Amino acid sequence: MPKMDFDIITLGHGSGGLLTNQLLDTGVFNVLKNKYLDTRHDGAILPIRDNKIAFTTDSFVITPIFFPGGNIGDLAINGTVNDIAMCGAKPAYLSLSFILEEGLKMTELWEILLTIKKAADHAKVPIVTGDTKVVEKGKGDKIFINTTGIGYIHPKALFNSDRIEKGDAIVVSGHIANHGITIMSQREGLEFESDILSDTRSLHHNVWTVLEEFGHAIKIMRDPTRGGVATVLNELARDAQLGIKIAEEHLPVIPQVTGACELLGLDPLYVANEGLFVAVVDSSIKDAFVKTLRSMPETRDATIIGEVSSKHPGKVVMKSGIGGLRVINMLAGDQLPRIC
Amino acid sequence: MPKMDFDIITLGHGSGGLLTNQLLDTGVFNVLKNKYLDTRHDGAILPIRDNKIAFTTDSFVITPIFFPGGNIGDLAINGTVNDIAMCGAKPAYLSLSFILEEGLKMTELWEILLTIKKAADHAKVPIVTGDTKVVEKGKGDKIFINTTGIGYIHPKALFNSDRIEKGDAIVVSGHIANHGITIMSQREGLEFESDILSDTRSLHHNVWTVLEEFGHAIKIMRDPTRGGVATVLNELARDAQLGIKIAEEHLPVIPQVTGACELLGLDPLYVANEGLFVAVVDSSIKDAFVKTLRSMPETRDATIIGEVSSKHPGKVVMKSGIGGLRVINMLAGDQLPRIC
Repeated sequence: MPKMDFDIITLGHGSGGLLTNQLLDTGVFNVLKNKYLDTRHDGAILPIRDNKIAFTTDSFVITPIFFPGGNIGDLAINGTVNDIAMCGAKPAYLSLSFILEEGLKMTELWEILLTIKKAADHAKVPIVTGDTKVVEKGKGDKIFINTTGIGYIHPKALFNSDRIEKGDAIVVSGHIANHGITIMSQREGLEFESDILSDTRSLHHNVWTVLEEFGHAIKIMRDPTRGGVATVLNELARDAQLGIKIAEEHLPVIPQVTGACELLGLDPLYVANEGLFVAVVDSSIKDAFVKTLRSMPETRDATIIGEVSSKHPGKVVMKSGIGGLRVINMLAGDQLPRIC
Repeated sequence: MPKMDFDIITLGHGSGGLLTNQLLDTGVFNVLKNKYLDTRHDGAILPIRDNKIAFTTDSFVITPIFFPGGNIGDLAINGTVNDIAMCGAKPAYLSLSFILEEGLKMTELWEILLTIKKAADHAKVPIVTGDTKVVEKGKGDKIFINTTGIGYIHPKALFNSDRIEKGDAIVVSGHIANHGITIMSQREGLEFESDILSDTRSLHHNVWTVLEEFGHAIKIMRDPTRGGVATVLNELARDAQLGIKIAEEHLPVIPQVTGACELLGLDPLYVANEGLFVAVVDSSIKDAFVKTLRSMPETRDATIIGEVSSKHPGKVVMKSGIGGLRVINMLAGDQLPRIC
């Protein structure tokens, strides 16, 4: 930790004046330095290589801010990187904006900042501009982070729900529900918490790799964060005006998560993920697609969970373990607030 | 107001599921619709015309959220549009991210959304992607908004503190301190509140116009928001390693603001502005520059307030009304929290 003259965040750190400058100099600029940020301007001036970009934003309000497998810092980087990846793109630039609650410990901010740095370096994306605000104690909750990103789109990417067809395969890139169950366990202080980690990680490398190999045969990709896999599948069925049929026995869930879901009365299909995608691909490439995904560590548990059907347009149905069919609706209400 | 089945924001509206979709359909997508947002994807895919862009982010946490002259909605649009303008650019695309507190009235969100629409239309910039999160009552404060923007840079813009030279003129584009005094008056319930309005407005049109006419002779522009004119001048003096000398008698302050500042013990130089810029320009164009600004309504009160000097590098001094010189430091502490 750098030499700082304060232990906690005060309202003065959001003043835009001397204290803000000190916080930025010793913290943000110091840790994240790069040629764009070093101009210390409110905005960055950036070279752009392509004539088409992906642009996406997310605010992160997760509680607790530290959890097994990560913290709000890498979650905020990976979340926006993955939203860019879901456009068929890789990240070029990120912005970073903090809303800090008065009283936040500088040690916590520092740890989050270092995690941000590590996640951004791992994703090979520079943070080029930012903002820091402070609200009074009781008017926020430690730290909220907005990240917004610009990405370059793969020349072969053509993601569009209109391209989804009967017979297309539904693939998930790994085990589902790990993130949500990790957070829930932390909040409830459950015993199994140490066995389960958030799946927060960046996936643009994996997306880029399959786009290189399979191009247009990938119809669309979505990351099933809030609302889980069930909600994403419902959005895809609605947008494509086709049915989706999945098989319960093919859903990749680790035993600890299955156990936790039973204990907590949760359905893993509705639990949030942070390092996962759902892809709809042409059936002719489905096995090769899964094989390529499985060759990479982040997606080594990829599997086909179902297919697109012309029956029951706009609906998602699941064949249960004992052979029955049930309709899977979009998440109603809020299963788990502030999961990301 | 559209037909909505709820009067207040609940945690379910942040679930990512059915209620989030309902809120977006009836609210955000309905009001802000454009071809990019209509894809209802987490990210937007955008054509980019130039090979250099401006990129800037800001989170808005102002309280109260409604104030004379505007609300947090137009503040958030104009603030990011102006940060883009301060890069010598005009806005091309904006993102919009909400952090809502459980219990926020739908009527308030609706009014803010309509104001956002109006401000974005006025600035001719589409909102192309967004995000909505909800936090529990007492963990936020009604509404926080992040806007992040991409802009096209004027071909003649070359803003850099390295280009500031001895003799350059310091220009402000209008009356100072109106925004901060408006907010302070609201909070204190002072009588003069009705006379003073926030100066929130977009300035990129004005910036574009002077860039067309004066190009490189404009050395740099900054918007004196948090920390006020004093803080921006200090940042410029520090970055350029030159001195700045201003004259108190030339500071454009409306009498109501002067009165309020006296009553509240505030120095208008440190009070926040939201629709103002400070420009450093070559002395050869200073009068023409001000004349052009004065021909446009948003900058009709533009005036020269001082000049760059080789004396006292890194410092800002002000000649007072009675002839004495005093050093103007950067804002220390926090004069007025949550002003933007």
